[in-house]
Amino acid sequence: MTIITLTTDFGYDDGFVGTVKGVILRIAPDVQLVDLTHSVSPQNIQQGAMALWRAVPFFPAGTVHLAVVDPGVGTKRRPIALRIGTQLFVGPDNGLFSPFLEDAEKHGDRSTFIHLTNPDYWLPKVSHTFHGRDIFGPVAAHLANGVAMEKMGALIEDPIRIELPKPEKTVKGWIAHITVMDVFGNLTTDLPASEILQKEKISFTIAGQTIHGLVESYGNKKPGELVALIDSEEFIEIAIVNGNAAQTLKAGVGDHIVVKQTT
Amino acid sequence: MTIITLTTDFGYDDGFVGTVKGVILRIAPDVQLVDLTHSVSPQNIQQGAMALWRAVPFFPAGTVHLAVVDPGVGTKRRPIALRIGTQLFVGPDNGLFSPFLEDAEKHGDRSTFIHLTNPDYWLPKVSHTFHGRDIFGPVAAHLANGVAMEKMGALIEDPIRIELPKPEKTVKGWIAHITVMDVFGNLTTDLPASEILQKEKISFTIAGQTIHGLVESYGNKKPGELVALIDSEEFIEIAIVNGNAAQTLKAGVGDHIVVKQTT
Amino acid sequence: MTIITLTTDFGYDDGFVGTVKGVILRIAPDVQLVDLTHSVSPQNIQQGAMALWRAVPFFPAGTVHLAVVDPGVGTKRRPIALRIGTQLFVGPDNGLFSPFLEDAEKHGDRSTFIHLTNPDYWLPKVSHTFHGRDIFGPVAAHLANGVAMEKMGALIEDPIRIELPKPEKTVKGWIAHITVMDVFGNLTTDLPASEILQKEKISFTIAGQTIHGLVESYGNKKPGELVALIDSEEFIEIAIVNGNAAQTLKAGVGDHIVVKQTT
Repeated sequence: MTIITLTTDFGYDDGFVGTVKGVILRIAPDVQLVDLTHSVSPQNIQQGAMALWRAVPFFPAGTVHLAVVDPGVGTKRRPIALRIGTQLFVGPDNGLFSPFLEDAEKHGDRSTFIHLTNPDYWLPKVSHTFHGRDIFGPVAAHLANGVAMEKMGALIEDPIRIELPKPEKTVKGWIAHITVMDVFGNLTTDLPASEILQKEKISFTIAGQTIHGLVESYGNKKPGELVALIDSEEFIEIAIVNGNAAQTLKAGVGDHIVVKQTT
Repeated sequence: MTIITLTTDFGYDDGFVGTVKGVILRIAPDVQLVDLTHSVSPQNIQQGAMALWRAVPFFPAGTVHLAVVDPGVGTKRRPIALRIGTQLFVGPDNGLFSPFLEDAEKHGDRSTFIHLTNPDYWLPKVSHTFHGRDIFGPVAAHLANGVAMEKMGALIEDPIRIELPKPEKTVKGWIAHITVMDVFGNLTTDLPASEILQKEKISFTIAGQTIHGLVESYGNKKPGELVALIDSEEFIEIAIVNGNAAQTLKAGVGDHIVVKQTT
Repeated sequence: MTIITLTTDFGYDDGFVGTVKGVILRIAPDVQLVDLTHSVSPQNIQQGAMALWRAVPFFPAGTVHLAVVDPGVGTKRRPIALRIGTQLFVGPDNGLFSPFLEDAEKHGDRSTFIHLTNPDYWLPKVSHTFHGRDIFGPVAAHLANGVAMEKMGALIEDPIRIELPKPEKTVKGWIAHITVMDVFGNLTTDLPASEILQKEKISFTIAGQTIHGLVESYGNKKPGELVALIDSEEFIEIAIVNGNAAQTLKAGVGDHIVVKQTT
């Protein structure tokens, strides 16, 4: 069974996601549907991109990732489908897939980008406000059925990219940025753990508090202590053991962390 | 694979929905389960009816729609199953399925209504507080397995209907009502777009603000502007471009919108 | 299709659950995935245990229940898998499965407890912060594929148990405790209905208010009335008809209810 994942800013209250699933299952009755998240803040493309980027690498080859965070619905922004490495993507051309485009470029992965222009793979009637249902859902279903992406539109070279946060190098280290704040209040940053060569000789300053060194896991310190550690995607994370760092530090996505090597 | 959709006021926190799914899968292991929404406000039958009504048309023939918003659980209110056109419905007889009953009457669709009285298709033990698990879940699963609805109880003619909001005709136009407020704060009304013959010669007054004319999509105006447009179900919708109309206008379900033709 | 249920404190916003599902489906493409709840309060083991305990009995034999509420992730707390009666469980060894261990002991069910030590059934790389993805998800998938639990680690005898709330016997009745507060504000207690022999001759005092006798269902009293009834798991429940008892009484999990037999 082919998998279609769904990532949107539709929320869980309105039945929009269920409607898209109905459309998909009418075309591809045997797919496995997996929700990544529908809690992306309305129209927050970067947040959607980060959520996708953390989850996609764990899906099998051939998975179709449907993502709809779409402030430009109904305008001339292009609907697109992408094949990057072994994964397929469908959604609006507004930067949602930027992390995969960056990675593909870095690793030289084979990629195909299609501007979806062929209405044969859409619902017969297309609204101006719900392309998740009318265009992206049907296209994802046809892709899951094995239809070649190339039949669905025209090859393009320039899908839109947004700039993703990157740590800034300083004399003694970096200015890192918080990229994700999770349900536990843990704060993931854009600083890859691989940059840090000596785990003891490093400090992190955030909201006026400084943490010295990295711990291996939450349990290495006492409940309530502020710690820095390597998160599950191998980036630096700030956390409070059994607590909520975001609330305690009043910190959120975009905030700076001053990182200093103390060698 | 037959699909069973689920629409309830059970929320996502308590495991009630998961329990109903366990019951269903014990009887019908191969169904596709699709959540429409479980965020209906407790006991809000009209909200449940509207959510169902927007999603159901997009599901394939033979889909079973399980809906439980059930203030009368454990009383004499009837458990029912309905076949309306190509879709099947299971739930309490309290008006939840009113939009489909109205539509069926309007279009002359073939319909069958059953009062569920045969305990062979229920869990052996029926509680007084959780018929979603004990009656409706099992019945939905047996329907998905192809059991004829007629075996499950007695034919009835009079499933309960609630009155659904309808626009009121005025001399110069209509008083429309907000029927749905979605996660984006967009406000859907009960006024079908088909009533409006000239898109430029119309005005909408809500919360002291007046909008002139309809736009085609959000992107036709600047972020922050209040607009009226045709929503994805072809009703008039009030929205703020990239903003939240419900919050800004302090408007909600049931509020009036004065619509005037200005020919 | 084998079922894997998922119960976590991961929430619905971050894509963690979707990531775990990707990992599972890569190993076991044909499983049915069922969410029980992902809204367990962060690190609240007892709440996770209660949610599991209410849902598990309704799943078919051979279901795999993956549960991750894991304050000790990355420490020496053991990852475990359990077979209790016909159900399988996977998660951290911290008491999450206590209700099933208690029940198994009471009923003399056959049980097998395994300390998961064999990395052949994990992801190749194991993080210090996300064992749901790296250990428990893969193990659940291999169990769903029919791999014998015994291959995955070493037999143990002593999975950790937490003490679950129990009513305290008094001269005239019991002190019961609220164990679950659901989305409707209904308050489930730890007092089994089977203890109460005469439904009329009993009183319940909570937050200064006393309820006399049990009703059969919410509909037996008028909206707004405070009632006691037998809940769907056959424990005593306090509710307000069509209202929210938790909010009105300002009551929550752990609060006492004085129960008196008035014979």
